[in-house]
Amino acid sequence: MKDVNQQWILAKRPIGFPEIDTWEVKNSEIPKPSSGEMLLKHLYVSIDPAMRGWMNKGKSYIEPIEIGAVMRAGVIAEVMEVGDGAPFQKGDILTGWNGVQQYSITNGKGWQKIPSSQLPLPYYLGALGMTGLTAYFGLLEVGKAKEGDVVLVSAAAGAVGSVVCQIAKIKGCKVIGIAGGKAKCDYLINELNIDKALDYKAENFLRELRVSCADGIDVYFDNVGGEILDAALTLLKRHARIVICGAISQYNNDKKIKGPNNYMSLLVNRATMQGMVVFDYKEKYPSALSEMGKWVKEGKLKSEFTIIEGIENFYKAFKTLFSGEKQGKLVLKVN
Amino acid sequence: MKDVNQQWILAKRPIGFPEIDTWEVKNSEIPKPSSGEMLLKHLYVSIDPAMRGWMNKGKSYIEPIEIGAVMRAGVIAEVMEVGDGAPFQKGDILTGWNGVQQYSITNGKGWQKIPSSQLPLPYYLGALGMTGLTAYFGLLEVGKAKEGDVVLVSAAAGAVGSVVCQIAKIKGCKVIGIAGGKAKCDYLINELNIDKALDYKAENFLRELRVSCADGIDVYFDNVGGEILDAALTLLKRHARIVICGAISQYNNDKKIKGPNNYMSLLVNRATMQGMVVFDYKEKYPSALSEMGKWVKEGKLKSEFTIIEGIENFYKAFKTLFSGEKQGKLVLKVN
Repeated sequence: MKDVNQQWILAKRPIGFPEIDTWEVKNSEIPKPSSGEMLLKHLYVSIDPAMRGWMNKGKSYIEPIEIGAVMRAGVIAEVMEVGDGAPFQKGDILTGWNGVQQYSITNGKGWQKIPSSQLPLPYYLGALGMTGLTAYFGLLEVGKAKEGDVVLVSAAAGAVGSVVCQIAKIKGCKVIGIAGGKAKCDYLINELNIDKALDYKAENFLRELRVSCADGIDVYFDNVGGEILDAALTLLKRHARIVICGAISQYNNDKKIKGPNNYMSLLVNRATMQGMVVFDYKEKYPSALSEMGKWVKEGKLKSEFTIIEGIENFYKAFKTLFSGEKQGKLVLKVN
Repeated sequence: MKDVNQQWILAKRPIGFPEIDTWEVKNSEIPKPSSGEMLLKHLYVSIDPAMRGWMNKGKSYIEPIEIGAVMRAGVIAEVMEVGDGAPFQKGDILTGWNGVQQYSITNGKGWQKIPSSQLPLPYYLGALGMTGLTAYFGLLEVGKAKEGDVVLVSAAAGAVGSVVCQIAKIKGCKVIGIAGGKAKCDYLINELNIDKALDYKAENFLRELRVSCADGIDVYFDNVGGEILDAALTLLKRHARIVICGAISQYNNDKKIKGPNNYMSLLVNRATMQGMVVFDYKEKYPSALSEMGKWVKEGKLKSEFTIIEGIENFYKAFKTLFSGEKQGKLVLKVN
């Protein structure tokens, strides 16, 4: 534990893939809590594809990060010092949103206490955090997946995708996952027990996809956009649902995003393509977390992590997010 | 009345815009009804953008028209001769699907009798036919339009669009219509009483569209696809609904259809894009037609027609469909 608070500050709005000078690294003093406040020591920072979108100017589902502000991120933090009347105790472990830094001050608003359990803390950024909730509501509320459905998932070995795969199996769906490389495909089959895993880097990928989905798909959970979305559109069953959760293949385009040319398949198949943002389901978080917590205890829902150590490695972690060289949820250990 | 039955036969599958040799014109004998059958004299043939899609090979929402078969079309026909036990009477006026020809034989399956009324018969191909039903279910069931919603309609002076505009006004929506040229825009404002009409051929159209929809749209009823769909995506309110009813700008492309590049707006706005085919709502046709019939009687719902005379002018009528040189529902008078 150093005597400084390393902070990653957004210095400019990137075009295309962010260079390292997108951020300024600042070593600040560790702040002091006033009355009603707490000093938090950040333990883990969640590294998510959505971060790229938050850096863009303009209207989106939440406000962009301001230039000069700490880079937004979900974190797990420990309460170190407590001012008079603060809502949590020293030693409590919380989740919230104070970003890529080692310490922060909060009045507790928007923070939740993590119950003590046997689970590794990163679970509360993964299957039992925003990641898991995104998978849960995307698959069940927007995708309306039900027993017997054929569910196709892209970025299936990723943070959200791997939870989608597992919930779909728990619900009795046939699950076809798309991931990059043999190791991830093996993981999907051997660890997550999905029905079919397809390597999008393989030469015959599109043909394999067509064969695997020959009877059509009921739900496509889209994390990637681009070519795979376009291919999925040609495979829809009647009344199919496409959940637009992300478009990682498109986030760092400096050119315009490429739309799905096969969108008229929505008409032919009377199908739906719907965007989802997890924050819309806030009132339902507790019941979802309780159901998912049960699945975790029963061993039906696992959370896999790639943990990178040291806040100084934030940029390396950010790059890993888009390079495909990770599995499951990516987390930066910062203290 | 000639002694022959002129029939337009699909001779080949067109690529791009159909040339006249896409069809073969055949003068056949007028057929005779057997027991249980009827001879129909076709009076009006419905000319619809969907015809273009039915000519393509491959999976769609209904079977493609077979090569060598009469060109599919909705018609209004009169019962001329009746075999023993046929389900309708001589002189009955029916609607059904026997295509671009002057006479046909039917056992009555799939045909509905038109009630006697003061309305011109083409109404039963327009507001009180498939066209009106498409508008009704698209706007209300898929678009979920409700009082106070801002509804944007493309091809607003067209057959389906003009009914969408009127139903949206009846339901208390703010209606913004897009059409080509001043005459159509004047018609939308003066005859259909919508709130704003925009000429997509005008130089400043996209700017006008942005200004007119500055507070965002709740429903976009899309008949055209292409650039206008892409622009509409940038104007969505949160939880907006896009109804994909057609893509007339794209039907005759010999290149690949162009997808909507701004589709990620669905995510940002948690919005839905859904395809619709009117046949899915068959059980609800009677209640919809009863409600729309009431609106027609009350003068709230009008059907405008462009009528082209003579079955020999089918190709001219087909071309008119895509040239924009018509208003309301296009109908070919064939007998």
